[in-house]
Amino acid sequence: MTLEAIRYRSGSLQILNQLLLPHQTEYEELRSVQDAYEAIKCMKVRGAPAIAIVGCLSLAVELRAGAGGDDPVTFIRESLCHLTSARPTAVNMGRAARELMEFAENESMEKNSEQLRESVISWIEDMLERDVNDNKKIGNYGAQHILSGVPRASVTILTHCNTGSLATAGYGTALGVVRSLHALSRLKRVYCTETRPYNQGSRLTAYEAVAEGIPATLITDSMAALTMREMDITAVVVGADRVVANGDTANKVGTYQLAIAAKHHGIPFYVAAPSTSCDLSLESGRDIIIEVRPPEELTSINGIPIAAPGIEVWNPAFDVTPHQLITGGIITELGVFLPSELQAALTGRLTAL
Amino acid sequence: MTLEAIRYRSGSLQILNQLLLPHQTEYEELRSVQDAYEAIKCMKVRGAPAIAIVGCLSLAVELRAGAGGDDPVTFIRESLCHLTSARPTAVNMGRAARELMEFAENESMEKNSEQLRESVISWIEDMLERDVNDNKKIGNYGAQHILSGVPRASVTILTHCNTGSLATAGYGTALGVVRSLHALSRLKRVYCTETRPYNQGSRLTAYEAVAEGIPATLITDSMAALTMREMDITAVVVGADRVVANGDTANKVGTYQLAIAAKHHGIPFYVAAPSTSCDLSLESGRDIIIEVRPPEELTSINGIPIAAPGIEVWNPAFDVTPHQLITGGIITELGVFLPSELQAALTGRLTAL
Repeated sequence: MTLEAIRYRSGSLQILNQLLLPHQTEYEELRSVQDAYEAIKCMKVRGAPAIAIVGCLSLAVELRAGAGGDDPVTFIRESLCHLTSARPTAVNMGRAARELMEFAENESMEKNSEQLRESVISWIEDMLERDVNDNKKIGNYGAQHILSGVPRASVTILTHCNTGSLATAGYGTALGVVRSLHALSRLKRVYCTETRPYNQGSRLTAYEAVAEGIPATLITDSMAALTMREMDITAVVVGADRVVANGDTANKVGTYQLAIAAKHHGIPFYVAAPSTSCDLSLESGRDIIIEVRPPEELTSINGIPIAAPGIEVWNPAFDVTPHQLITGGIITELGVFLPSELQAALTGRLTAL
Repeated sequence: MTLEAIRYRSGSLQILNQLLLPHQTEYEELRSVQDAYEAIKCMKVRGAPAIAIVGCLSLAVELRAGAGGDDPVTFIRESLCHLTSARPTAVNMGRAARELMEFAENESMEKNSEQLRESVISWIEDMLERDVNDNKKIGNYGAQHILSGVPRASVTILTHCNTGSLATAGYGTALGVVRSLHALSRLKRVYCTETRPYNQGSRLTAYEAVAEGIPATLITDSMAALTMREMDITAVVVGADRVVANGDTANKVGTYQLAIAAKHHGIPFYVAAPSTSCDLSLESGRDIIIEVRPPEELTSINGIPIAAPGIEVWNPAFDVTPHQLITGGIITELGVFLPSELQAALTGRLTAL
């Protein structure tokens, strides 16, 4: 069984309500841009790529029903602006909004309202298809690269956070690599860290693994190094919030620590990310500002306090892994590249390994 | 204010009920060996050294009231046997029971029941005093050793789990070093990891720090490497369940990962442990069997499920840090030693650094 976090058919959109996971599996119909805005705002859907695709698909649903009347461009602009404001730090929604708006404005030069609606719907549907296909390519390239080092053997992967169907348009990035290995019957097991403080590993990655019958074991973040030493880990594969020009990678906090432990054990460390997550405008990771989130994420679970009252907390949301520690490579839909090759590869000056 | 986890006056014993921490501070009177057995069994008191001292003190309370009548040796033997069975893996209780029994049997050769009761009570009270004094020596030696590398500056320490008043007879081991630095006005801040899955850091270490006004910041286990890079950590100091002859150290899971990260950042890594936690009968840490605990410790908090149902779990309780990673030294009540010096130091062939 394949887990469907986003169910889209022309004119209809449903999402798996992530607030109820992992204990309840419930799909919710999104009939409008406003429905999507609210679902994004209250985190029924999360993960920057997933937010972007759900936002755009909700617009497609409204356009299919004729929204915007004689002035669809204004309706599209206002909708995209509203959607982007739901979670301003999720960069993919902003990028998709800019690209889609530029496309809609160009189309409006030569098309009537009905034709414009149709072409914008097609653009959005293509985006869904392209995102999922890109993830499948990432999964396939990553799996092949990892397997090339261990002919015939089954592999054991360690991953962090949630980078699967629940965070992307579908299939996933790092978890897509795990899915591909499983599909090839070459995955012995995946170890997933619970990923404190927000527990995306224990709630979401574990949920996806159980749903699809992928052999998976949950560990605490603190057990990763011991797992590397004891469990014959073939490779560590993580996702990325942002990869910059020299290959330095911002990702969920804890990634840096995993990369250090992998290096210590001589285990290849891979980052899996679509080229749209690569930001060549920044030279190095030193320029990335670390977002610090509220203490309550550490000191309570589901509103119940779990820490000593009055204790100070530092809660950085992500960290930056220097490119030197990304020893396996950066897995994109264009192929797997060493950090030093990334810039050339993405600007067309290098082909895939 | 100094946190008192164990309140003992001749004939009276109270413990801080750790099941209610960090949200309620409530002392409970232990009037008998049976009271102590139940408090240990249900984890109102925890930490191997604390279990041993509370168990023995409860025996002293009963002996003060005349327990054992004309045959105190039988009463003492049965009491110690019962106490040891409450948490059989807490080695300190077993060791204390053997030593105390040997002492009581020797004393019984030449003393009447009343005299025997008195000398056993003294032995137990001496044990309490010695344990606390040993911890203060550990704190002092550790603080001096750390400060010797940074004259005049304040230091920032990172620690793991709970090794303070709540886990020992008093003062603490690794947290005792932190206390000593604070008492010397040389502690800038201590970072404590929450220590999944049982959260001893966020519940207990944070509680002790808040109670005593020690400047402390709570982080998740996954943030330790980032903290080392960003927060100018002077040293990492942890406790030990067991240190073996070559210096390899078994301690709360996550310690190994911290040691790797400390090495990567060139930060000295210290183990603080009384010589009674050193087991020279084992050559290396390879001989230590890793205790695996129930999955529920990871998948629920206070009985509330927090992970995807059906996910497999690996929950090792501790890990072994190889001596090569203990770059600062092993802090004992005899002084601070390099792992390679430990055996000679403990057998009297080497004096403190």
